[in-house]
Amino acid sequence: MDKRILMVILDGIGDRPVEELAGKTSLQAAETPNLDSFAKNGVNGIMDTIAPGIIPGSDTGHLALLGYDPYKVYTGRGPFEAAGIGLELEKGDIAFRCNFATLQDGKIIDRRAGRIKEGTQDLAKTINDIDLGIDFYFKESVEHRGVLIFKEKRLGSQVTDVDPHREGDEYHKAEPIVENKENKRTAEILNKFTERSHEVLYNHPINRKRTKNKKHPANIILARGAGEVPDIMPMQQKYGIKGAAIAGISLVKGVCRLVGMDIIEVKGATGGLDTNVENIIKASKKALDENDLVLVNIKGCDLLGHDGLAQEKKEFIEHIDSIIDILKDIKDTYCVITGDHSTPVSVKDHSGDPLPVTICGENVRIDNVERFDEISCAYGGLGRFKGRDLFNIMLDLADKSEKFGA
Amino acid sequence: MDKRILMVILDGIGDRPVEELAGKTSLQAAETPNLDSFAKNGVNGIMDTIAPGIIPGSDTGHLALLGYDPYKVYTGRGPFEAAGIGLELEKGDIAFRCNFATLQDGKIIDRRAGRIKEGTQDLAKTINDIDLGIDFYFKESVEHRGVLIFKEKRLGSQVTDVDPHREGDEYHKAEPIVENKENKRTAEILNKFTERSHEVLYNHPINRKRTKNKKHPANIILARGAGEVPDIMPMQQKYGIKGAAIAGISLVKGVCRLVGMDIIEVKGATGGLDTNVENIIKASKKALDENDLVLVNIKGCDLLGHDGLAQEKKEFIEHIDSIIDILKDIKDTYCVITGDHSTPVSVKDHSGDPLPVTICGENVRIDNVERFDEISCAYGGLGRFKGRDLFNIMLDLADKSEKFGA
Repeated sequence: MDKRILMVILDGIGDRPVEELAGKTSLQAAETPNLDSFAKNGVNGIMDTIAPGIIPGSDTGHLALLGYDPYKVYTGRGPFEAAGIGLELEKGDIAFRCNFATLQDGKIIDRRAGRIKEGTQDLAKTINDIDLGIDFYFKESVEHRGVLIFKEKRLGSQVTDVDPHREGDEYHKAEPIVENKENKRTAEILNKFTERSHEVLYNHPINRKRTKNKKHPANIILARGAGEVPDIMPMQQKYGIKGAAIAGISLVKGVCRLVGMDIIEVKGATGGLDTNVENIIKASKKALDENDLVLVNIKGCDLLGHDGLAQEKKEFIEHIDSIIDILKDIKDTYCVITGDHSTPVSVKDHSGDPLPVTICGENVRIDNVERFDEISCAYGGLGRFKGRDLFNIMLDLADKSEKFGA
Repeated sequence: MDKRILMVILDGIGDRPVEELAGKTSLQAAETPNLDSFAKNGVNGIMDTIAPGIIPGSDTGHLALLGYDPYKVYTGRGPFEAAGIGLELEKGDIAFRCNFATLQDGKIIDRRAGRIKEGTQDLAKTINDIDLGIDFYFKESVEHRGVLIFKEKRLGSQVTDVDPHREGDEYHKAEPIVENKENKRTAEILNKFTERSHEVLYNHPINRKRTKNKKHPANIILARGAGEVPDIMPMQQKYGIKGAAIAGISLVKGVCRLVGMDIIEVKGATGGLDTNVENIIKASKKALDENDLVLVNIKGCDLLGHDGLAQEKKEFIEHIDSIIDILKDIKDTYCVITGDHSTPVSVKDHSGDPLPVTICGENVRIDNVERFDEISCAYGGLGRFKGRDLFNIMLDLADKSEKFGA
């Protein structure tokens, strides 16, 4: 039977030792009989998602894990966020991440417009009626978030953010980062868009109602993270494989969608701590029936790393461990368990520390590793390798790659 | 005294665990006191000949092991096979692998012309008398095999095979893979060659005799694997070292010859299971007197991997082990024992799994590895590295490389 590939990406799983956990990492401190059992029955190693000491984002990290060179295809977060919320993109489109924000007396007093939850679809409709002189599209996303696309040729993507990134400041005028005609044109259009967004939102019924209810009005759109939609060869064309992904957050969905994978929506998969890990794991197993490759991203560890919560991160790992047992009996599948980057609780952000990796499946070279953690896996049969190599290793195991030479 | 380098390449040595050998690899299961003794007295590691998960051929694998980038110098199998049977090649020549085959009623009924053993030299002479309008050369090799060289400028190498690769089919017309003048011209000349080969061989006395003796006549030449002879800087020029190689099969001989090594012919070195390992090892030892570097390729493990014979592969490894002892007392030499690629019996073909590596010689950093196998070596002092790095490691140990910087 044809072999499949399952990539279980525990977002931000890697850690550094913390005093609170008696000098162990959150992963070392966690009781993980099931993850350990995968390690015992598999071949293990440590992986630098991009390269040693390079701090991956979730976007660049997933690109590398899927066999793409992020230095070649990553053009900024905008396009990936846009793809993640389902926008159809064409190579050359310019994409921005946006916030609904609150402008008052010339200052941005709330970058998230009171974390607005309702009415953003109506506000978006109004925004899309603006006449900018070019083809553009704005789409609201979760809460105060949104995405803006300029669908015009001869535009540059190297422009500064309108978003001042802190409250109490004026919003910024977008400016070319590199001086050329294309970037200048994008900056001009973006500045016009920003002004016009305020003009059409200022007196919008939804905002009048918000003000009346003592809520911050969503009266301006602040764009940031401009990026040109990259030309990425789809996975099916590049590797001849059909892929699908399950992820809670739009950024990871966007990466997977832009490399040509189907996105499977799973009930209760929120990308938060409340995410339904059981539904996610079960859905990934089911998706293997119709795909050569399934990637599943579970976000929780990353969030707790960002918040610096060691005990909670340890417990979330134990929660995952209690469910991952479901994958033990999968047939005809090479399964890899790893992360996209480390998010040490002591750093409260991503770090360049390598990730533990366990690969299980028929006839893998079982080594002497008995535990799934950052140190134990370093003693495994895979040694240390890069994220982009992982994809080739998986293709080779699943008999999906071609010999180079004779 | 000047230090020498000995590279012992056990072709296809790497494996994956198999049930038949109680979940061990053929190398793990083999009793190898001598190989283990090298591991104990050496520094060990695992090596990706090309890169992790990339499946090497024997040609691309040996190029990498000899310090060349196969992605830059590998142009297809033809030129390497041609060099392997001793043809003098010039950069830009177009080389093809060929078979003597049997054409009957418009169909290829035997791609190997009854595995013809005698008379191919005479048939080749007749073929070389054909007037193609360009300079070309055909040379017979072992049994039904041969090589064809177009020694003409302005020819392309991107043409499809004439060989239909299965019996019962008509032979194919060569066609340009990429449409351009050069490829079109090559295809035209090759198609003319194919037709003319049938015309001159059809009624050849040797074939009349074969037909009379109920043997398939060798009445057509089927070409495949077109490749342009690459521009490879010889080892002596690139590294300032004089190299020699011992190999049973012409493909490996061809790689070594094209990088400027001498080929040493050893009595009984067949490239088969009957090869005389003792003669090979003794000859390699002797060759160190007159060379800076000697590479020896022993093919058997690869053949048994391709055939899926675990027990036999294990026994062939034990056979090698019983003889490799001869190398224990070599002086002033850094010896590396490894493979060019894995050929797992469960895969019956090459795989991208890394190879065990042992390096012995004066003052190497002896580690804690006690056994020469795919897992034990992963715990060694060399960690995991690439095939092209191995060459530099050996040059450095043998004091044959220059400092980069001051």
